[in-house]
Amino acid sequence: MKMRFAERAANLRASEIREILKLTEMPEVISFAGGLPAPELFPVAEIAKISEQVLATQGQAALQYSPTEGFPILREIIAKERMSRAQVDVSAQQILVTAGSQQGIEFCGRLFLDKNDYVICESPTYLGAINAFNSYQPRYLEIPMDDEGMIISELEKTLEQHPEAKMIYTVPDFQNPTGRTMSVARRQQLARLAKRYQIPVIEDNPYGELRFEGDSYPAIKSFDDEGWVIYLGSFSKTFCPGYRIGWMCAKPEILHKFVLIKQASDLQCSSIAQREIALYLQQYDLNEHIAKIRQVYKQRRDLMLESIHKYFPATVKYTIPEGGLFTWVELKRDIDAARLLDEALQEKVAFVPGASFFPNTHHRNFLRLNYSNMQKERIVEGIQRLGLVLQRHYN
Amino acid sequence: MKMRFAERAANLRASEIREILKLTEMPEVISFAGGLPAPELFPVAEIAKISEQVLATQGQAALQYSPTEGFPILREIIAKERMSRAQVDVSAQQILVTAGSQQGIEFCGRLFLDKNDYVICESPTYLGAINAFNSYQPRYLEIPMDDEGMIISELEKTLEQHPEAKMIYTVPDFQNPTGRTMSVARRQQLARLAKRYQIPVIEDNPYGELRFEGDSYPAIKSFDDEGWVIYLGSFSKTFCPGYRIGWMCAKPEILHKFVLIKQASDLQCSSIAQREIALYLQQYDLNEHIAKIRQVYKQRRDLMLESIHKYFPATVKYTIPEGGLFTWVELKRDIDAARLLDEALQEKVAFVPGASFFPNTHHRNFLRLNYSNMQKERIVEGIQRLGLVLQRHYN
Repeated sequence: MKMRFAERAANLRASEIREILKLTEMPEVISFAGGLPAPELFPVAEIAKISEQVLATQGQAALQYSPTEGFPILREIIAKERMSRAQVDVSAQQILVTAGSQQGIEFCGRLFLDKNDYVICESPTYLGAINAFNSYQPRYLEIPMDDEGMIISELEKTLEQHPEAKMIYTVPDFQNPTGRTMSVARRQQLARLAKRYQIPVIEDNPYGELRFEGDSYPAIKSFDDEGWVIYLGSFSKTFCPGYRIGWMCAKPEILHKFVLIKQASDLQCSSIAQREIALYLQQYDLNEHIAKIRQVYKQRRDLMLESIHKYFPATVKYTIPEGGLFTWVELKRDIDAARLLDEALQEKVAFVPGASFFPNTHHRNFLRLNYSNMQKERIVEGIQRLGLVLQRHYN
Repeated sequence: MKMRFAERAANLRASEIREILKLTEMPEVISFAGGLPAPELFPVAEIAKISEQVLATQGQAALQYSPTEGFPILREIIAKERMSRAQVDVSAQQILVTAGSQQGIEFCGRLFLDKNDYVICESPTYLGAINAFNSYQPRYLEIPMDDEGMIISELEKTLEQHPEAKMIYTVPDFQNPTGRTMSVARRQQLARLAKRYQIPVIEDNPYGELRFEGDSYPAIKSFDDEGWVIYLGSFSKTFCPGYRIGWMCAKPEILHKFVLIKQASDLQCSSIAQREIALYLQQYDLNEHIAKIRQVYKQRRDLMLESIHKYFPATVKYTIPEGGLFTWVELKRDIDAARLLDEALQEKVAFVPGASFFPNTHHRNFLRLNYSNMQKERIVEGIQRLGLVLQRHYN
């Protein structure tokens, strides 16, 4: 039998990371390949209390269908508390509750992309976004980055050459995979360019609240006076990913289209998950909880960077993330990180080779390391093992 | 400002039902327009116990990311218990957990449909499927129905004329909107035609377990020896919709593609929802719970049909659903049900006009009535009011 699929089905590829994660599941492997939050920080006891209350006082409503836009109280709290922390002043009318920010990314692909349309993104960019957009058969224009994020002069050149491009996708805070953050000046410039070139910006910000030092940056959307920026937020990294609750923030005309897409896709997010998160946010201080996460992740980052400094060859470059979950390592040009992984696995250590984060260019001498989900002793031990493997190639 | 959307965005339309539901939300209106299960039957107390156990014994895992395919124990139970009730013999490897069966419908659109491809469906068909498929800009071929469901000789003619059609979508059990059920003989014939014409069948079955009398029918998929049938199931009507948990069942090669689509769409369903439902299914007897639902809905159906018989003009036709949530009323050809709704609302009663369930033909003299979510006294009172409105047009 041979089923006839849509043309887009040819773009369906298993995430390389997923395949790698399978390889690294052996317990003796110290794996920096994942991107999971630390489960020991989940407020399990508090959630148990909340869940009991929700079922006792609003059980039938929590188990019934509910509006596509999201639970009104949750939308309200997201607008007032989470968006204001990103310095964006919006009302609940501009919030759609989604199944994580991943669903928001996919919805942007669906709303904006026809076949062969251009998506502008950072080089490298989030692999999950590439996978989501690929359903709509776009082409990619990669904008080089430096330590202040996407290089805006390069973006402007690209917009001049391709004014027909359909959207700009960016992860401005502690980007996955590089850990880099876009400077405030560039955020302003990006918002200005979006307006001038009349192109929507997808600001994907799952990590922004996990800043280890200094003040948090205003969102790109805070500089957006016409509504070109679509902001994607998530509770996956600041609370728990298991609920699959995030949100989109966009001006009402645009949000309305996403509501229709949401309705056609899965009707709504879990009613009970939304009511539980809303009640948690009413009864507990999420900012306090986030402060705890930040503290733990900062210690893990510090230890990872110290260990890299100690055990990696001196010429290996790496980013110093000011928050988030990842650092990004640049090797000598002639090292293929995918091959290096085979060697590393023999030494019982793993990472994600960087090639799949580049939609077009496939640079092979990068790798991504996660520190959020690893106990301290294992960070040191793992980086030491990886250092050993690297030293072979540098001596 | 003018954003440039994808071509498909032109197909984004608000569900007419949704708009009608807003009109009918006034408490004094008796509305048969919705399609909600009866919340007083949700096993709230049992779920409270289950939720407590899940958080106490597997809290961290329930709040963490989990596999895209779904929680293994839940997949196992779905395969063994739910699919076997539909007389389909499959393993957990053929189950993908989805956000309701709605998400399964949308995924089928994404996997199979290019612009202008033909979808074959019942006439009328489920409005949510039309909305989901419309993102992929298909055309529709409607197959007439009778009391045994889709007329298979008509389907065969259509397949002969359009061998290029990409898929057949059907709701064989207590169809939304008509309440009709496809006979066993036609299920066999449909499976045979799918194989002969090499065309996938999307068997959408959210209501199948809610049969009021007689034996349940084997799924179309039970007659499928090559894997042409993709079966969609849901816990929304047999347990609770608020969790947003359903499933797809397909042969492994096809299921793998849906797993990739799921991963790009929202990574996975809620980990905690899946673990709670799995534990409920281990500790309680869902079949017993479903028996209770059936009993209540059967009483409501009986009362609605009796009331229709008593209060509607004698020449009005209506289906006698053997299960599910809806009956379907056929009026004189010259009555436009959308206009009738205006009159009905003045008498404080509401329904869904049938036109939007027809993708092409838009017959205007039908209406859908829901009985699952309405107390008995209100069923009699509402049908009496509607009868009053109808009598004006028949005398």
